Amino acid sequence: QRISFAELQSTISAVLQRTGVSPKRADRCATLFAETTRDGVYTHGLNRLPRMLAMIANGSVSTTAEPTVVASHGALESWDGHLGIGNLNAEAAMARAMELADQYSLGCVALRNTSHWMRGGTYGWQAADRGYFALSWTNTNPNTPAWGTAGPTLGNNPFVVAIPRINPKTGDYRSGPHVVLDMAISQFSYGQLDAHIARGEQLSVPGGFDPEGNLTRDPAAIRESYRALPIGFWKGSGLALTLDLFAAMLSGGKATHEISLDPLFETGISQIFLVVSPSNVAHAEAMTQTVDALIQALRSAPRSDPATPPRYPGEETLRLREENTRLGIPVDESVWAEIQLRLS
Amino acid sequence: QRISFAELQSTISAVLQRTGVSPKRADRCATLFAETTRDGVYTHGLNRLPRMLAMIANGSVSTTAEPTVVASHGALESWDGHLGIGNLNAEAAMARAMELADQYSLGCVALRNTSHWMRGGTYGWQAADRGYFALSWTNTNPNTPAWGTAGPTLGNNPFVVAIPRINPKTGDYRSGPHVVLDMAISQFSYGQLDAHIARGEQLSVPGGFDPEGNLTRDPAAIRESYRALPIGFWKGSGLALTLDLFAAMLSGGKATHEISLDPLFETGISQIFLVVSPSNVAHAEAMTQTVDALIQALRSAPRSDPATPPRYPGEETLRLREENTRLGIPVDESVWAEIQLRLS
Ligand SMILES: NC(=O)c1ccc[n+]([C@@H]2O[C@H](COP(=O)([O-])OP(=O)(O)OC[C@H]3O[C@@H](n4cnc5c(N)ncnc54)[C@H](O)[C@@H]3O)[C@@H](O)[C@H]2O)c1
Ligand SMILES: NC(=O)c1ccc[n+]([C@@H]2O[C@H](COP(=O)([O-])OP(=O)(O)OC[C@H]3O[C@@H](n4cnc5c(N)ncnc54)[C@H](O)[C@@H]3O)[C@@H](O)[C@H]2O)c1
Repeated sequence: QRISFAELQSTISAVLQRTGVSPKRADRCATLFAETTRDGVYTHGLNRLPRMLAMIANGSVSTTAEPTVVASHGALESWDGHLGIGNLNAEAAMARAMELADQYSLGCVALRNTSHWMRGGTYGWQAADRGYFALSWTNTNPNTPAWGTAGPTLGNNPFVVAIPRINPKTGDYRSGPHVVLDMAISQFSYGQLDAHIARGEQLSVPGGFDPEGNLTRDPAAIRESYRALPIGFWKGSGLALTLDLFAAMLSGGKATHEISLDPLFETGISQIFLVVSPSNVAHAEAMTQTVDALIQALRSAPRSDPATPPRYPGEETLRLREENTRLGIPVDESVWAEIQLRLS
Repeated sequence: QRISFAELQSTISAVLQRTGVSPKRADRCATLFAETTRDGVYTHGLNRLPRMLAMIANGSVSTTAEPTVVASHGALESWDGHLGIGNLNAEAAMARAMELADQYSLGCVALRNTSHWMRGGTYGWQAADRGYFALSWTNTNPNTPAWGTAGPTLGNNPFVVAIPRINPKTGDYRSGPHVVLDMAISQFSYGQLDAHIARGEQLSVPGGFDPEGNLTRDPAAIRESYRALPIGFWKGSGLALTLDLFAAMLSGGKATHEISLDPLFETGISQIFLVVSPSNVAHAEAMTQTVDALIQALRSAPRSDPATPPRYPGEETLRLREENTRLGIPVDESVWAEIQLRLS
């Protein structure tokens, strides 16, 4: 089933307003959910809304709280999110980091006590659309074993790197073909494991250990051991750990090990929004040449599979955005029915 | 064979002075090489010196060039390294980023046209020793296939994250037990593959593809296919690509695909030094509590191998630093003989 962006957005907004979110904030939050679905990150768009609604119901997410500044010096601020709606908090923090970068060329907001930001890439696209470079990440509850541990001790702490590119149609950055990396630091999420199990498929690459401690592509065996892999084994493990510390220490917030193992109470998390405004230091034309040449080199390189051109991070997002805008946005029928039921 | 830090450092300094490096700069450069070896990163300490000397000889590294500021605005500067000695250029750039952070809480230097910085972690320890958080990375020549390409198209672009911790003996940050992640974005370097081949060992985890396109732990098969893996498959590939763009675009320097495939001419590279000074925004005591509690949680977690305690990134560095300071620094006899020959 495919529906229009307008219908998806207005339905989500109406549902949020029923929970006590103000019309203006519900509208914006719904736009972010709808854009995530439109861009093809189905796991963190509409399909994730029921969990957020449950967390509003159980008190893990506040419908009215807005973030406040805790401390500020130069280009750096720390904020408290007061368990407000995660995507609104994150968007506000990234917007503030960009304001700081307007003044200082760099800007950073360290946000504590916030709730799940849904698609991490959202805030990367937000920054790149204004011509900023961004590094941004969140911690999460423990869901991946640190290298050498047997159970979940690390977050999969999605990490976002955004590289702005000028839109050739308009000559400015808005809606440009940005390069946006948006990756969880586990190789596969448990949601992806479950989807493979449901389809009866093996993983494309090893995703964790079986109960005997052997690397495996069998999603059920990883479910059983609860030992999914961080990317690059000890390397991703160290990356998740240091990103967790960076966010929790600078924001004064919680680290992964302090966050509930129960996904319905995964709240009070810590995030970093760090942007660079290049305009006073680098030349737009030279930057465009560099990124275009790199993408050209990638596309013309010999391929491992001749039929599959290599892609840059974010390329598929743009393709799906275009396709879903043209054909309508695919929605999961049962989730869509469940959401509409809330309005009847 | 084990030798003292003083002997190692002064020997390297003397060799560098023979190539035309000034006594003061040779001394500092030699200290960085000796510290890298003392800290157990043998691949990028003394053992790497012969290649740097060869690159001085072939004109890829200048013994006299010092970096200059190209553009500056607020907390961001771009620098040209003029192919100067990589570790000296990098140390100067990190020192300047810290000065900027003293003023703005954030500081960044984007450095182009520099040469190999040797151990990336050096600049993370430098920042953490003064109480700063740091993110820093370099690009390299093409040595890892991007996801979907058949030959080397990406750099293994080492990425460094530094988290400062107070030294409990002195109460300040100097020589603290910092958490420093220092990782190449390939799972194994070709140097590590060769070391495994020489020892007749398989890799501990899959490190690349064999010529038939299957994942393998056989280092010789990966050598043959020249398809080593980035960490996390498509994820590390995207990370290396975005870090490359970030560094090359902001510095106005070269991206990986513009750098020579020949390691003896791997020069003119691009690097980022980005630091956060927490002191005006976060409380030192709270930060200490957060990092100590996280390390405590890691150590007390159930283990995958009961005999092996999980480690945080940088922990082994401190252990080796202590051991090698106590027992003397192990040196490869043939490399050590070769270096001494240059002085006779
Ligand atoms: N708690 C959280 O906040 C949380 C946790 C997990 C995931 N997420 C979100 O879930 C989404 C999916 O995350 P993921 O890690 O599963 O993403 P993924 O594995 O689908 O993609 C990761 C990155 O790799 C790139 N990529 C994927 N396939 C590629 C290919 N063949 N060639 C080149 N590049 C390729 C993508 O563009 C993306 O930038 C993200 O939006 C993430 O923020 C959020
Ligand atoms: N061109 C370049 O600049 C270049 C290229 C490649 C490597 N290098 C340097 O080579 C050195 C080695 O790089 P590498 O990627 O092979 O490092 P590595 O794989 O040995 O370690 C990577 C990181 O993981 C951590 N680590 C390793 N084993 C661990 C364990 N069992 N538990 C927890 N943490 C663990 C380490 O502390 C380190 O931070 C680095 O100093 C790097 O900067 C430089």
